[in-house]
Amino acid sequence: MLLQTIFYVAIAAEAMTAALAAGRRKMDWFGVCVLACVTALGGGTMRDTVLGHYPLTWVEDPYLLLICCAAALITIGLARFMEHLRWPFLLLDALGLVVFTILGCDVALEMGQSPIIVIVAGMITGIAGGIMRDVLCNDVPLVFSSELYATVSIVTGVIYFFGLQFGFPGEAVIIAAALIGFALRVAAIVWKLEMPKFVYDKELR
Amino acid sequence: MLLQTIFYVAIAAEAMTAALAAGRRKMDWFGVCVLACVTALGGGTMRDTVLGHYPLTWVEDPYLLLICCAAALITIGLARFMEHLRWPFLLLDALGLVVFTILGCDVALEMGQSPIIVIVAGMITGIAGGIMRDVLCNDVPLVFSSELYATVSIVTGVIYFFGLQFGFPGEAVIIAAALIGFALRVAAIVWKLEMPKFVYDKELR
Amino acid sequence: MLLQTIFYVAIAAEAMTAALAAGRRKMDWFGVCVLACVTALGGGTMRDTVLGHYPLTWVEDPYLLLICCAAALITIGLARFMEHLRWPFLLLDALGLVVFTILGCDVALEMGQSPIIVIVAGMITGIAGGIMRDVLCNDVPLVFSSELYATVSIVTGVIYFFGLQFGFPGEAVIIAAALIGFALRVAAIVWKLEMPKFVYDKELR
Repeated sequence: MLLQTIFYVAIAAEAMTAALAAGRRKMDWFGVCVLACVTALGGGTMRDTVLGHYPLTWVEDPYLLLICCAAALITIGLARFMEHLRWPFLLLDALGLVVFTILGCDVALEMGQSPIIVIVAGMITGIAGGIMRDVLCNDVPLVFSSELYATVSIVTGVIYFFGLQFGFPGEAVIIAAALIGFALRVAAIVWKLEMPKFVYDKELR
Repeated sequence: MLLQTIFYVAIAAEAMTAALAAGRRKMDWFGVCVLACVTALGGGTMRDTVLGHYPLTWVEDPYLLLICCAAALITIGLARFMEHLRWPFLLLDALGLVVFTILGCDVALEMGQSPIIVIVAGMITGIAGGIMRDVLCNDVPLVFSSELYATVSIVTGVIYFFGLQFGFPGEAVIIAAALIGFALRVAAIVWKLEMPKFVYDKELR
Repeated sequence: MLLQTIFYVAIAAEAMTAALAAGRRKMDWFGVCVLACVTALGGGTMRDTVLGHYPLTWVEDPYLLLICCAAALITIGLARFMEHLRWPFLLLDALGLVVFTILGCDVALEMGQSPIIVIVAGMITGIAGGIMRDVLCNDVPLVFSSELYATVSIVTGVIYFFGLQFGFPGEAVIIAAALIGFALRVAAIVWKLEMPKFVYDKELR
């Protein structure tokens, strides 16, 4: 299945960008591998923990851990060539975001969850790994203040859920949700589309 | 049931203070909503995850997520009027702390947990959401060093557990635990009651 | 069983070093106790949550929480004498690391997990508590950049798993895995053995 292939590619891409983040914190090879695994698999882990959906994806399929570690170590070896790969990484990351979202919605759908939870499960799958990466790197999570990212996940999830709900064929819905989500993310990067910020600097008294 | 009503009000109040914390970090509207949900619902989520008590409260009742997001967005709109609302928020937060604690103890009691775990479950419900908020905002959790807060939760839980244990009627025990906990928290704010600090600045050698 | 005794000693030792970390952040007594519990019991908690292995160790045996709090409060009382105890603590911590690892592997083995997951479960048990401590203290986790620590856990787990797999008697395998892991950790501290670092300071473009 195409979705599954893209899933593996996206896992590896997430692991590689996480490895670069680890390098900025001067982590050792072990830290690089852990950060790669947490970033790439943390979203699915949080979704499954929150839904009580055991066994977790990577516990059932531990080769995912090896893929993450391999991608992370390859990144260390090829770091000098990475500089000019911003766009390939951004595109793979965008693809990963929509694929993670759709697979996350699927898990919740199979459990018979309510619509809100299906969409939230997709969003957690798409964004929680990056939040964990930022917490472990001691940053305020990027996803809370940068270009549209979580919004892309929510839009993808909404299209996917209601597309299925309205009885369109599964593959068409997947393709539509993925394409629209992907396009929205690319547009957000190109035109720097952001949610409005909330800036508050007073103390309550 | 009164407790349930106060629960919803307290959820909204937690979400609103979290929204102000998000504003201090210049998060966007999405980040504000996530931080509100995590802060208001994170305590119960951690309790249920730790006890293996599925489904989680907000998975079963997803409207809780909408309440948090609505409260957070209203806070953005009304931020200019919030400055002078320190006391209303502190009182609602104190009410929330004791109500969350009692409801958390109830979950553990229904599962037949031991006394220590009942009280710890109440405490996790009361304070873990605020700890998650501070971690996501890249702060050392406030609850580890400010006025009595976790202590209030423990006192409330102890009164509630032993009150029931000694056979007093449930409603009387709830009211007594809530009132004493609430009064203790207000006293702690007014008179700046704190636990003693442990200050250690040497390295082991 | 000897392993169980060492387990309790190691829990207390982890709680004591966590208490000193809390003191460096000027936490109050409550914060000291929470940080002690999280550090000493967080690894097992994460392992059990990830594997869906309920009830958690400390929920089943809540006296572990009291041991952690007692050890933490004793540390506050004896803090002035702690300065010169670096080596005893390092040795107890090393012992704890290998014992936590072996007990963590055991949990996964009893659940019939695959080899990779057995070793990962051991490693999570050994290191995740320290990661949580560092996140709550607002530091980048030490384990990602200091002397061999997680590696020690992995080596211990590999020896333990394959020792059992090859049919050696259980006690011999435990002793061998523990001794080799312990020796490796001590050697790492004495000779400052580290994994190579990955240093990357460019932005992608």
